[in-house]
Amino acid sequence: MDLGDVPNDQTWPRNAWYVAFMADEVVDRPLARTICGERMVFFRGQNGEVSALDDFCPHRGAPLSLGFVRDGALVCGYHGLAVDCRGKVSGMPGQRVGGFPPARRYPTMERYGFIWVWPGNAEAADAALLRHLEWAESPQWAYGGGYYHIDCDYRLMIDNLMDLTHETYVHANSIGQKEIDEAPVKTRATEDEVVTSRFMDNVVAPPFWQMALRGAGLPDQDRVDRWQICRFGLPSHVMIEVGVALQGHGGYDADDTAKASSIVVDFITPETETSHHYFWGMARRFAVDDAALTDTIREGQGKIFGEDLEMLERQQANLSRHPDRKLLKLNIDAGGVRSRMMIERAIMAESGSVASSDRAGLDMAAI
Amino acid sequence: MDLGDVPNDQTWPRNAWYVAFMADEVVDRPLARTICGERMVFFRGQNGEVSALDDFCPHRGAPLSLGFVRDGALVCGYHGLAVDCRGKVSGMPGQRVGGFPPARRYPTMERYGFIWVWPGNAEAADAALLRHLEWAESPQWAYGGGYYHIDCDYRLMIDNLMDLTHETYVHANSIGQKEIDEAPVKTRATEDEVVTSRFMDNVVAPPFWQMALRGAGLPDQDRVDRWQICRFGLPSHVMIEVGVALQGHGGYDADDTAKASSIVVDFITPETETSHHYFWGMARRFAVDDAALTDTIREGQGKIFGEDLEMLERQQANLSRHPDRKLLKLNIDAGGVRSRMMIERAIMAESGSVASSDRAGLDMAAI
Amino acid sequence: MDLGDVPNDQTWPRNAWYVAFMADEVVDRPLARTICGERMVFFRGQNGEVSALDDFCPHRGAPLSLGFVRDGALVCGYHGLAVDCRGKVSGMPGQRVGGFPPARRYPTMERYGFIWVWPGNAEAADAALLRHLEWAESPQWAYGGGYYHIDCDYRLMIDNLMDLTHETYVHANSIGQKEIDEAPVKTRATEDEVVTSRFMDNVVAPPFWQMALRGAGLPDQDRVDRWQICRFGLPSHVMIEVGVALQGHGGYDADDTAKASSIVVDFITPETETSHHYFWGMARRFAVDDAALTDTIREGQGKIFGEDLEMLERQQANLSRHPDRKLLKLNIDAGGVRSRMMIERAIMAESGSVASSDRAGLDMAAI
Repeated sequence: MDLGDVPNDQTWPRNAWYVAFMADEVVDRPLARTICGERMVFFRGQNGEVSALDDFCPHRGAPLSLGFVRDGALVCGYHGLAVDCRGKVSGMPGQRVGGFPPARRYPTMERYGFIWVWPGNAEAADAALLRHLEWAESPQWAYGGGYYHIDCDYRLMIDNLMDLTHETYVHANSIGQKEIDEAPVKTRATEDEVVTSRFMDNVVAPPFWQMALRGAGLPDQDRVDRWQICRFGLPSHVMIEVGVALQGHGGYDADDTAKASSIVVDFITPETETSHHYFWGMARRFAVDDAALTDTIREGQGKIFGEDLEMLERQQANLSRHPDRKLLKLNIDAGGVRSRMMIERAIMAESGSVASSDRAGLDMAAI
Repeated sequence: MDLGDVPNDQTWPRNAWYVAFMADEVVDRPLARTICGERMVFFRGQNGEVSALDDFCPHRGAPLSLGFVRDGALVCGYHGLAVDCRGKVSGMPGQRVGGFPPARRYPTMERYGFIWVWPGNAEAADAALLRHLEWAESPQWAYGGGYYHIDCDYRLMIDNLMDLTHETYVHANSIGQKEIDEAPVKTRATEDEVVTSRFMDNVVAPPFWQMALRGAGLPDQDRVDRWQICRFGLPSHVMIEVGVALQGHGGYDADDTAKASSIVVDFITPETETSHHYFWGMARRFAVDDAALTDTIREGQGKIFGEDLEMLERQQANLSRHPDRKLLKLNIDAGGVRSRMMIERAIMAESGSVASSDRAGLDMAAI
Repeated sequence: MDLGDVPNDQTWPRNAWYVAFMADEVVDRPLARTICGERMVFFRGQNGEVSALDDFCPHRGAPLSLGFVRDGALVCGYHGLAVDCRGKVSGMPGQRVGGFPPARRYPTMERYGFIWVWPGNAEAADAALLRHLEWAESPQWAYGGGYYHIDCDYRLMIDNLMDLTHETYVHANSIGQKEIDEAPVKTRATEDEVVTSRFMDNVVAPPFWQMALRGAGLPDQDRVDRWQICRFGLPSHVMIEVGVALQGHGGYDADDTAKASSIVVDFITPETETSHHYFWGMARRFAVDDAALTDTIREGQGKIFGEDLEMLERQQANLSRHPDRKLLKLNIDAGGVRSRMMIERAIMAESGSVASSDRAGLDMAAI
């Protein structure tokens, strides 16, 4: 396997499934996207199946993404070299292509409404390694979401999502409220996830949740118990169980008829060392047939996550300006810190290094 | 004192007062500006006093300039860490902040209509070191000015202002006239300033000065004696006494009733090695109550200094392209050359080096 | 001769005539352009003759291109230093300029409707080395053309023009047709040119050629014999004989009354390692007095060459991203490969190296 272009000090696991596109984005034309530092071209070939190849024509280096799809093959728009869905050169006018080098192929999969890609060792790609997402398949859930390109290290986004204290400040007018940064936060890590949770009992619902309560057919001015349970998993997603229950009905464990709850869905795909693709959305268990509500939520969520964008990009600019400065790691940061340790261990496992806790500790000190 | 981020070959004195803002620019929201290579945030805290801190939250590196002021403290807009006007962390929701590292503070002062900042060693900051500016306090003077960001080494602006020969060319349609580059120029240096002077007797007043003569209630078509006396002082300002007197009344020494005179005010604050903040203005002793005239002059001066801007930025681009080329140092350049020597001695004094004339000579050969 | 700023690994011959401007672009104001890595200023001095100098004032490094022409001399717009057409400082107000260093001069020539410049050793410049261009002088030809700035290595443009297979793909809607990439291509090299030719007999004329046939007063729906003969010559032009003859009249050798033919003219002047100036045009032997047709052809050709632009710039971006990747060299690439070998030999001859075929072979393997 040729890893020639990969920097030694990579900051992401490579042998993992990453979201590359929302499935409906990839239609009849090839599309370019850089994932984990590798520039790829995605296209739908035979039977509409999506393939991902190195976006570099083996002939003269033109981007294959400027070409077109014909009979299931991707045809270079410069001189007509055609590659099949596995990257094999399948033809070129006037040429015998038997000995042509292939374009590198990246394993892909379409599932749960997304196109997933495996940037690392193709032989190791295994569909079974993709985590099951119940909300994406069950009729009991409705989903809506969107995409942002963000110019910061993808781990800053993980930090952001694993510590919702920032809602009080960054999202003061939508989901933020004073009680968030006053409520204690708990962090724990298991084998395969890091969980940060916060419970706020007997509070007034902020605007977003008032809207959700109305959507669920519940009174929007009553006091509620509110919760946020952030779950990080490899390689880089954060699923956040969020909700409010009418006060006194059991909070998180309340019956569905007394609460509005949902999962904030975040797939965070590295592009370069200082940029990433952010796929955000919300899966909800109330009013699942209300398409207009889906649109309203998507619009609201898009605005909220747009507020993070400026903060994160300027945080990145500050960190790039001062790469050697140490940052604080408070209790509220534990979710991000532990998620980074899990990432670090995965990277070391790929490179064959021993993931000694010493090493991890040293590395974490420099986040 | 932590000087970690400062390059060894700095091109500006650090222990000095620099203009950072016009005073009325800093109101209720924090503002970021890079001064002498340090990115700072300015805000008005308790009693409206202006503070400057490192624009980097001690918690996670977010820019403090994205935050807000509450009860005189600057609150980070990401997770709510608050710093007081001296950079001490004064609070954060749910945290004991006693052991938190402070944000670096830069001494500031509001005086003469400007916010001044001291980028160097805070202990050495002394308000008494700020030069007295009579025109800024006396009712006998009127002042108007503006700001430009210019992408060139601040010393190219000093060169520009210490050699007004360029007016004949760059400002041919406003203040330039043929007699400028024909009149000899004299340069002398004292302990604390470099002075370049030029006198043009019995000339026609160019358009700008015709306007000034009218503003002063004098005939604008009579022949005049004209003068320009440029004074450079550390760390980087140039005050230019300029004026015209009706011919035969004594020129520079003429009675106030026979002349129109003013001071061109230039504060030149380094931003990076190849950019600076330029605060320009004019203090005049005629028609001081005529606010409309102040606006007219500001507008005219803004246009004139905009003409320098393109020339200086493209000169910088040329010098960056050819960093090793030697430039000529003619008699007309003596003002800039001597000002740079004064700057060089100040830098060496800060670093503890002996300001040997040999060293200075060698360095000047490379301007 | 001072070659201080020239990189050792230059990718173009320097002792050669390059097109710098279309002649009518250089009028009364000085113009800057970077040619072969050297930033030059062009102006018309005494008798309207065009000169090219280093765009760097010997005084303080301001760009001379911001100045103006007076009495045949180029006057710097900063402080009035004047240089004559050979770069000698001819005057400056208040200065004795006898000992001033000159601005470097680059030999120039105006011929065939272009301004030509010699970026290398001025002593070696010889007007006789400029190739004769019959179409530019004879009344039997009409010419129209234009200019594009393109962000790619100039040799990628040579590759493009020496292999017209790409027309089938890049120019599918104008001059491309399926028969191009099906017709075999032949490449041969002589002492001073590389020739790639392709003949397509008994085909339907594509839209561009239908228009040309109409312009020549011939039927535009009859079947034709079509040809393309690409000729590369040093330092970097490609002249392409193109045309169609009514089928059965002898093809390329048909009588003028049975064909429409022209020369696609391409002057490709390096700017930097990854950008060039592209002067394109068409010289035709039919309807030479039809100025409206000249405009129509220019417009059509401009659109077609604009299609190449995106492909070439993105190919360059891909190659810059992967500088070590080997590309394929197929039979259709032979024209470009051999042209690059000719360029490589010229560069080695300039540097005094032996142009061993081994060396050339090694270098070509890395294109």
